[in-house]
Amino acid sequence: MAGTPGPDAEARVRASFEKQGLMALIGARLVEVERGRVRIDLPRRPEVSQQHGYVHAGATSAIADSAGGYAGLTMMPEGAEVLTVEYKLNLMAPAAGDLEAEGTVLRSGRTLTVCELAVFAVVGEQRTQVAAGMQTLICLPGN
Amino acid sequence: MAGTPGPDAEARVRASFEKQGLMALIGARLVEVERGRVRIDLPRRPEVSQQHGYVHAGATSAIADSAGGYAGLTMMPEGAEVLTVEYKLNLMAPAAGDLEAEGTVLRSGRTLTVCELAVFAVVGEQRTQVAAGMQTLICLPGN
Amino acid sequence: MAGTPGPDAEARVRASFEKQGLMALIGARLVEVERGRVRIDLPRRPEVSQQHGYVHAGATSAIADSAGGYAGLTMMPEGAEVLTVEYKLNLMAPAAGDLEAEGTVLRSGRTLTVCELAVFAVVGEQRTQVAAGMQTLICLPGN
Amino acid sequence: MAGTPGPDAEARVRASFEKQGLMALIGARLVEVERGRVRIDLPRRPEVSQQHGYVHAGATSAIADSAGGYAGLTMMPEGAEVLTVEYKLNLMAPAAGDLEAEGTVLRSGRTLTVCELAVFAVVGEQRTQVAAGMQTLICLPGN
Repeated sequence: MAGTPGPDAEARVRASFEKQGLMALIGARLVEVERGRVRIDLPRRPEVSQQHGYVHAGATSAIADSAGGYAGLTMMPEGAEVLTVEYKLNLMAPAAGDLEAEGTVLRSGRTLTVCELAVFAVVGEQRTQVAAGMQTLICLPGN
Repeated sequence: MAGTPGPDAEARVRASFEKQGLMALIGARLVEVERGRVRIDLPRRPEVSQQHGYVHAGATSAIADSAGGYAGLTMMPEGAEVLTVEYKLNLMAPAAGDLEAEGTVLRSGRTLTVCELAVFAVVGEQRTQVAAGMQTLICLPGN
Repeated sequence: MAGTPGPDAEARVRASFEKQGLMALIGARLVEVERGRVRIDLPRRPEVSQQHGYVHAGATSAIADSAGGYAGLTMMPEGAEVLTVEYKLNLMAPAAGDLEAEGTVLRSGRTLTVCELAVFAVVGEQRTQVAAGMQTLICLPGN
Repeated sequence: MAGTPGPDAEARVRASFEKQGLMALIGARLVEVERGRVRIDLPRRPEVSQQHGYVHAGATSAIADSAGGYAGLTMMPEGAEVLTVEYKLNLMAPAAGDLEAEGTVLRSGRTLTVCELAVFAVVGEQRTQVAAGMQTLICLPGN
């Protein structure tokens, strides 16, 4: 389902991302916006750690959730808004390194969208998947 | 499974919470530590918002995940460490207000622990459940 | 959210249950229908086992999913139909014994409903929770 | 993680599958056993239906759960047994047709294994993904 979104879709995603106080607070960056696929990165820093010094699952979740939500938004009609209904995340390895979260639309329906979530930790040339998940989104039609 | 944890359990939870950079960054506070049950609060502020001004699902998740993880830790042997294996969260209503996350142990085994997660938004005297979830934890025995 | 459903709601649930070939095949019985809460039982037999002789997670899931779906249906408008969007189930203990699945509505919205799922195994006077889960349903309005 | 499992792994999976009463009851067939990947098929019949005539989510879950569990077992040491800790399944489209469930290992650890679950419905030459999920397994070492 990848491909180039309309210029409006990317602009909508970027405008919405700028409004997310949490993304700025934790230092996340919107890196790629394709049709049905979005990537958000989070450089590792002490401020987003858990008690063992790895990135906190909450920060990992935050970028994964946002990446999936915006991936869904790229396939929704103009003026629509997206809300997360639920998501599930398996934390498979310690989040040691800079993080890259990818959200990819698996099925886009009129009301509900299902995304796959994947988070990778990058240390030097090594890129390890540290989380995998699934997410259900709901499309709120605009006026 | 509620009850008073040993003084060590509460001290261990508080010491670990202090080391979580993300909890300090978002402004979360460890409010209650009982045996098998922990509560973490998050006052609403623009820095933890999503694009519509509500608290971001990632911040909601962060305090829910930490509350569940520490609830599990209160029932683990001294020296043990806890890691989140996976969790699933349903976001049932906009997180409008100050948040209170509760993690409650449903089943505590030697290796795995299952917790229920609940997050409430408080505005004045109104307290609304905004998220419900489940979490699987693994106990890493100490030396 | 418990309470007595209208006679129509219970009749609708019972009529729908009778049409589920799988419930008959595995030997499940619709035991209780309240507003926002439904219980379905499954007597243990070799035909529903997994490789160690316990009840198969698929059979446990089937009754949990149906109990939740029907609990949601009791709160939907007449003529509406219910579909499961997704569910998550933690299998906390071997399903040794006769099973009792309870679905309870946690939040009922116009489009989406969230239920808690719980499955208990009964052996003599002992009743042990063997599974806990969450479920998201969608309401399809009737004509 | 695909590849040929040792002859023992495939034999272990086939022997275990034969002991699952539920798989025989619903008419499921073990079709492919590779290292880290297993496929189980379920021909559509009225006995496995839900109230609208599609395959019941419980039957869909049963073959998805078994496919994932056995995919995990192919990568575990000889004598080990596998149990499902939890799984989550999104039902994305009506299960109309003969079903094919695939379980694929995403990460195999000493204690825990994470699998992706996918279920497809086949009608003539059309193959549609009807469910997607994630599963956590635990390895119980043999004697």
